[in-house]
Amino acid sequence: MSYSDYFASRREEQLEELKQWLRIPSISALSEHKQDIQSAAAWLADTLKRAGLENIEIMPTAGNPVVYADYLHAPGKPTILVYGHYDVQPVDPLNLWTSPPFEPEIRGDKLYGRGTTDDKGQTFIHIKAIEAILKQEGTLPVNVKLCIEGEEEIGSINLPPFLETHKDKLACDAVLVSDTSLLERGRPAICTGLRGLTGMELTVSTANTDLHSGSYGGAVPNALHALVSLLDSLHDEKGKVAVEGFYEGVPELSALMREEFAKQGLDENKVREGLGLDALYGEEGYSFVERVGARPTLELNGVYGGFQGEGSKTVIPKVAHAKITCRLVGKQDPELTMDRIEKHLNAHIQPGARFELKRSERAFAFNIDPSHPILQTAADAYGAVYGTRALFTKDGGSIPIMQAFSRVLQSPVVLMGFGLDDENLHAPNEHFNLENFDKGLLTVVEFLKTV
Amino acid sequence: MSYSDYFASRREEQLEELKQWLRIPSISALSEHKQDIQSAAAWLADTLKRAGLENIEIMPTAGNPVVYADYLHAPGKPTILVYGHYDVQPVDPLNLWTSPPFEPEIRGDKLYGRGTTDDKGQTFIHIKAIEAILKQEGTLPVNVKLCIEGEEEIGSINLPPFLETHKDKLACDAVLVSDTSLLERGRPAICTGLRGLTGMELTVSTANTDLHSGSYGGAVPNALHALVSLLDSLHDEKGKVAVEGFYEGVPELSALMREEFAKQGLDENKVREGLGLDALYGEEGYSFVERVGARPTLELNGVYGGFQGEGSKTVIPKVAHAKITCRLVGKQDPELTMDRIEKHLNAHIQPGARFELKRSERAFAFNIDPSHPILQTAADAYGAVYGTRALFTKDGGSIPIMQAFSRVLQSPVVLMGFGLDDENLHAPNEHFNLENFDKGLLTVVEFLKTV
Repeated sequence: MSYSDYFASRREEQLEELKQWLRIPSISALSEHKQDIQSAAAWLADTLKRAGLENIEIMPTAGNPVVYADYLHAPGKPTILVYGHYDVQPVDPLNLWTSPPFEPEIRGDKLYGRGTTDDKGQTFIHIKAIEAILKQEGTLPVNVKLCIEGEEEIGSINLPPFLETHKDKLACDAVLVSDTSLLERGRPAICTGLRGLTGMELTVSTANTDLHSGSYGGAVPNALHALVSLLDSLHDEKGKVAVEGFYEGVPELSALMREEFAKQGLDENKVREGLGLDALYGEEGYSFVERVGARPTLELNGVYGGFQGEGSKTVIPKVAHAKITCRLVGKQDPELTMDRIEKHLNAHIQPGARFELKRSERAFAFNIDPSHPILQTAADAYGAVYGTRALFTKDGGSIPIMQAFSRVLQSPVVLMGFGLDDENLHAPNEHFNLENFDKGLLTVVEFLKTV
Repeated sequence: MSYSDYFASRREEQLEELKQWLRIPSISALSEHKQDIQSAAAWLADTLKRAGLENIEIMPTAGNPVVYADYLHAPGKPTILVYGHYDVQPVDPLNLWTSPPFEPEIRGDKLYGRGTTDDKGQTFIHIKAIEAILKQEGTLPVNVKLCIEGEEEIGSINLPPFLETHKDKLACDAVLVSDTSLLERGRPAICTGLRGLTGMELTVSTANTDLHSGSYGGAVPNALHALVSLLDSLHDEKGKVAVEGFYEGVPELSALMREEFAKQGLDENKVREGLGLDALYGEEGYSFVERVGARPTLELNGVYGGFQGEGSKTVIPKVAHAKITCRLVGKQDPELTMDRIEKHLNAHIQPGARFELKRSERAFAFNIDPSHPILQTAADAYGAVYGTRALFTKDGGSIPIMQAFSRVLQSPVVLMGFGLDDENLHAPNEHFNLENFDKGLLTVVEFLKTV
């Protein structure tokens, strides 16, 4: 049976199976979901076993477990390590979801639910592609290992030491990852660059109690004033990061790179209109794809302090909070970047206020040379299925672990993504276009058979 | 029996009675407490009846009802209208309360709970003082009316039309209010100035969905960036409000006024240390009491947007909010002030972002001439009980309705406060020093007998 027929005949059954996994709310950022993390890992281990994989293990880390499996019966052939993650993003604001995030639902040709595209849906493609080859041909043409973690959405903090400890067990000729996007519908892409990431929580404090704005207003520091003043100081009027030394290690865009970006042919007006915006906003002198692919950022992801209820409350808050992440490029050092931000905050904090900075994620940017033969094979595999060869792109996201994979395992990393940028990953109404689920299965089969 | 003995013999019983009222969570800012507002009004009406007052009515308004009562059996004598409020502030953050806000508890010589000082405790003093004179002497030496409202903490929006409608019924020679503070323990004060108030809710929006900071970060507007930039622009680097025209109508401080403020002898270092602050913060060139008593403010009471949960979430929020109030002085016009702020926001909003401004409270500042005989009598009444005559001060708070009382009823307003500034009104662990409950009862009796 052709692989097309094979997958077509099992489509409904396989989507039902994926939905089981999507129903488990394995949110790694929230400790109340610890048990769901365990359930999602257990479900995965079972599914790998049913797919015909061997040596399945739920391997402990200092945090959430890694699920491992392999099939090593092609001596002399390359070994491909598939990486993915079974944890998902939080779901608030819940009221903006059309269908509940953990009740996956197909509407039209899209599967809706948290984790559908990031990353359960994409990880599931690899499992089902391997299962298909095993069912159709009795064995695999290459050796495969799977390493699926549960902390990607909180920075993969425990994976680098895990890779170090198990680097012999995980040794491979290439790491294969599906956690990125096509350029757009019908236009596949292999990402050859990812931004690095740092995360921080900033807490600004003033008095030892909340105060009445009548009795004290105008004469004492207000934690919210001190916070917004600090936060506003982090960018200049043109949207450039104003932290001294922040851009150190950021490569200048060469004419060649600008040409590569231009090839993507992104219609910025279409993006702007799609987002319902009057204007895009970013660093002057760069296009949208350059800003996202080659420039670093400092973003506020959350800010809160004082009264949030209905109506008003004339309070001067004693504490205010901000959640901040930076996307890094080139050789920007995550730790040094946080040092610089801390120094900037120290220099700009208002009299009477003080702050604490709690550091979390740290990941260098990732870059790979697209001329590597395995990347060329991957581009061809897409070509065979999509009818158009994959472009080599740079993505603005971060998969913090990519840099560690290439450093520890000394292997090329192939980012073979099947998502689309407008699939609301990390937002309400996350979804996965089933066209790319179907084509993804065939592309992975093609890749494993030709690599 | 002396009034001291009278109150001493009933102290425990009266505090138990007050606690019943404090247990009703009559938070006017939160609609889920509508029923509690009704219960607090009903409790008050019963208590006024038991105290011997007459013509008790729970009078409807477009919002929460006004509780009215009177005792008009002293022809030819002055009529005193007692004003107070039975609604209270919200209680969050709840986890910072030592005892629950609506389970009043005496610890040491203080009564803890929401509303103890602002304003159920202070209103209760008037009821019990009137009851005492009626019990001891069979009648009152003056005519009294009580007008106790349920919307003070949300700006008394419906009281001005109520006063207009019922201005004959409420006609009086003076309005007596206990909703302010002593200067400090043992130092009574009569407030002759209150700041005005305006309230606004600012909502900043960008894209039509939350976005992933990897796929979009650096190339689209972030509602939080736009918000903090707007909010920071509202003050200059020295803490002065940067909105054009904001200070119009603010009187210059005369040498005489500065002298009056200096008489209060406030130890700013003691205030600073008590609040656990490294430094106080406010407009340059003014002392603490001048900043609070004679200068306007623009305060952030709440700011929120994006992810607030545990851990991190790499989201670019599409919406962010701020709650803002201004304290006004002199002839500053609340509506015009909001117009000016809106104009400022329009001029400073980032490209790609837009905002909405929802206006709420509006109150002019209030000022009264301390040389009025009735204020002099009130200062003497304090002197008879506290052993030291009340100082005439200006308070930084707002009782939005004071200006309306003096305008509609054409009567002087006597702000005879029994609170203390450090009693955490509008904050966790609100309390009332029972020393001033005891002395307050005697001071009100003295005032009613001598006015």
